[in-house]
Amino acid sequence: MKIQPLDDRVLVIPAGEEETTASGIIIPDTAKEKPRRGTVAAVGNDEDLQELIKEGDVILYGKYAGDELSYDGTDYLILSQGDILAKLS
Amino acid sequence: MKIQPLDDRVLVIPAGEEETTASGIIIPDTAKEKPRRGTVAAVGNDEDLQELIKEGDVILYGKYAGDELSYDGTDYLILSQGDILAKLS
Amino acid sequence: MKIQPLDDRVLVIPAGEEETTASGIIIPDTAKEKPRRGTVAAVGNDEDLQELIKEGDVILYGKYAGDELSYDGTDYLILSQGDILAKLS
Amino acid sequence: MKIQPLDDRVLVIPAGEEETTASGIIIPDTAKEKPRRGTVAAVGNDEDLQELIKEGDVILYGKYAGDELSYDGTDYLILSQGDILAKLS
Amino acid sequence: MKIQPLDDRVLVIPAGEEETTASGIIIPDTAKEKPRRGTVAAVGNDEDLQELIKEGDVILYGKYAGDELSYDGTDYLILSQGDILAKLS
Amino acid sequence: MKIQPLDDRVLVIPAGEEETTASGIIIPDTAKEKPRRGTVAAVGNDEDLQELIKEGDVILYGKYAGDELSYDGTDYLILSQGDILAKLS
Amino acid sequence: MKIQPLDDRVLVIPAGEEETTASGIIIPDTAKEKPRRGTVAAVGNDEDLQELIKEGDVILYGKYAGDELSYDGTDYLILSQGDILAKLS
Repeated sequence: MKIQPLDDRVLVIPAGEEETTASGIIIPDTAKEKPRRGTVAAVGNDEDLQELIKEGDVILYGKYAGDELSYDGTDYLILSQGDILAKLS
Repeated sequence: MKIQPLDDRVLVIPAGEEETTASGIIIPDTAKEKPRRGTVAAVGNDEDLQELIKEGDVILYGKYAGDELSYDGTDYLILSQGDILAKLS
Repeated sequence: MKIQPLDDRVLVIPAGEEETTASGIIIPDTAKEKPRRGTVAAVGNDEDLQELIKEGDVILYGKYAGDELSYDGTDYLILSQGDILAKLS
Repeated sequence: MKIQPLDDRVLVIPAGEEETTASGIIIPDTAKEKPRRGTVAAVGNDEDLQELIKEGDVILYGKYAGDELSYDGTDYLILSQGDILAKLS
Repeated sequence: MKIQPLDDRVLVIPAGEEETTASGIIIPDTAKEKPRRGTVAAVGNDEDLQELIKEGDVILYGKYAGDELSYDGTDYLILSQGDILAKLS
Repeated sequence: MKIQPLDDRVLVIPAGEEETTASGIIIPDTAKEKPRRGTVAAVGNDEDLQELIKEGDVILYGKYAGDELSYDGTDYLILSQGDILAKLS
Repeated sequence: MKIQPLDDRVLVIPAGEEETTASGIIIPDTAKEKPRRGTVAAVGNDEDLQELIKEGDVILYGKYAGDELSYDGTDYLILSQGDILAKLS
């Protein structure tokens, strides 16, 4: 079974809050409202969205954006396109 | 007699709150604002909606979304398309 | 003299609050925000509305939706299309 | 001199609050938010409005809708089309 | 030098508050929210507006609508089209 | 270096608050919410805006409209088109 | 790895708050709500945006606009097009 987001939504696996990436992004967890980072697990059926975002993309989004969901031991977020600030490429 | 949702609304039979599915989705009821899961019982006449959602689909939606209704001993929710976060497929 | 709703409005005769229908719909009056049921007495001139709703249809709507009106000893509600959640068919 | 409403507005002469019509409409003044009744004295230049409402029509509108105006000893209301709930025909 | 309103705005010279016109309009100043009356001094460049309102028109508008301006000893109001309830013709 | 407003914005040099113009505009500073006056220093790239407002125009705008900016010893305001009430011509 | 803003967003490197430019812009940090200045590091995929703003442009934006992000020791802001007040050219 797969979680398929609708319309302009994406399913995201959030990065751990304390994480430091190889390329050096540090998103201090103490800061309020700083964007967070996650990996796209599934993309909704909206065509504009599908041109911008693919499965596997690493994206940044607002700290309080989206709805949380637990599935098979993994924590997900379901975000709308408008919640996505940037992608890392 | 049948409950036929209008426009972009769907009629949903919510899953029990304590439920654990075979595939392992656990939606802890203690968490605030976590999405809930239900089975679509009827789909409104909106064409875009009907392409995305069919009777029998299992969908996720916000915890406080929709209007409750009791019918023949079954509890239903009437959701708008915008309340649907994802479907499980 | 007849009450003719305008645009996308319908004139509805609400079902009694304590009513139990033959088909078994029970809408407990103690519950907050549960939808209520009524019979359509007249339909506005909006064409989309007229395809969806006919005089005589039984519809469900939000508990606090619409404007009340007394006429010839009958209590009515005037609802907008957006207030209608579903019809029973 | 004539009062000519603009756009989608109508000029209305409200019925007296205590009035009982021959056809039996009673709009109890003690009820809050019940619609009120008036006779259309002039119609704005909006074409959609002019198809729906004519001078002389008796209409129902929300109790607190519109702007009051006194003219030649008559009390008027200036309503927008959206304030009109139904017409009596 | 001339004050030229932009877009859908009109420049209005408000009538004195205590005024009684020859035709008998009395707008009692004690009433709250009653519309007021003024003479149009200039009309914005919006084409729809220019079909409805000409320089010299006497219009009615909400008591608290518009922005006040003093110019050469005259008090003006700058109103938007939506603030105009009716014109007297 | 030049400040170039974007879209439908204009860069304005506000007139001194105590100023009395040769043509006699007095905008008493004690009055609340009275419009203020300024000279347009630059116009955004929006085409509709550029037809209405040119560099050098004297415009009126709401007292609390816009964002302030200091540049080379001059105080500016950056206004949106909707903040402009009228121009003096 | 590169931060690529989505849609109508831009990635900006804010100027230091105490800075005085060669051309003399002083944006006193004590003033409330004064616009701030930054250099565009990346532009979203929106075509209208890309005509107005290029990488390297110096732009002004509201003091509280945007989302902060730290990357490789640099502080960034992610702004929407509507947050950009002007560019310096």
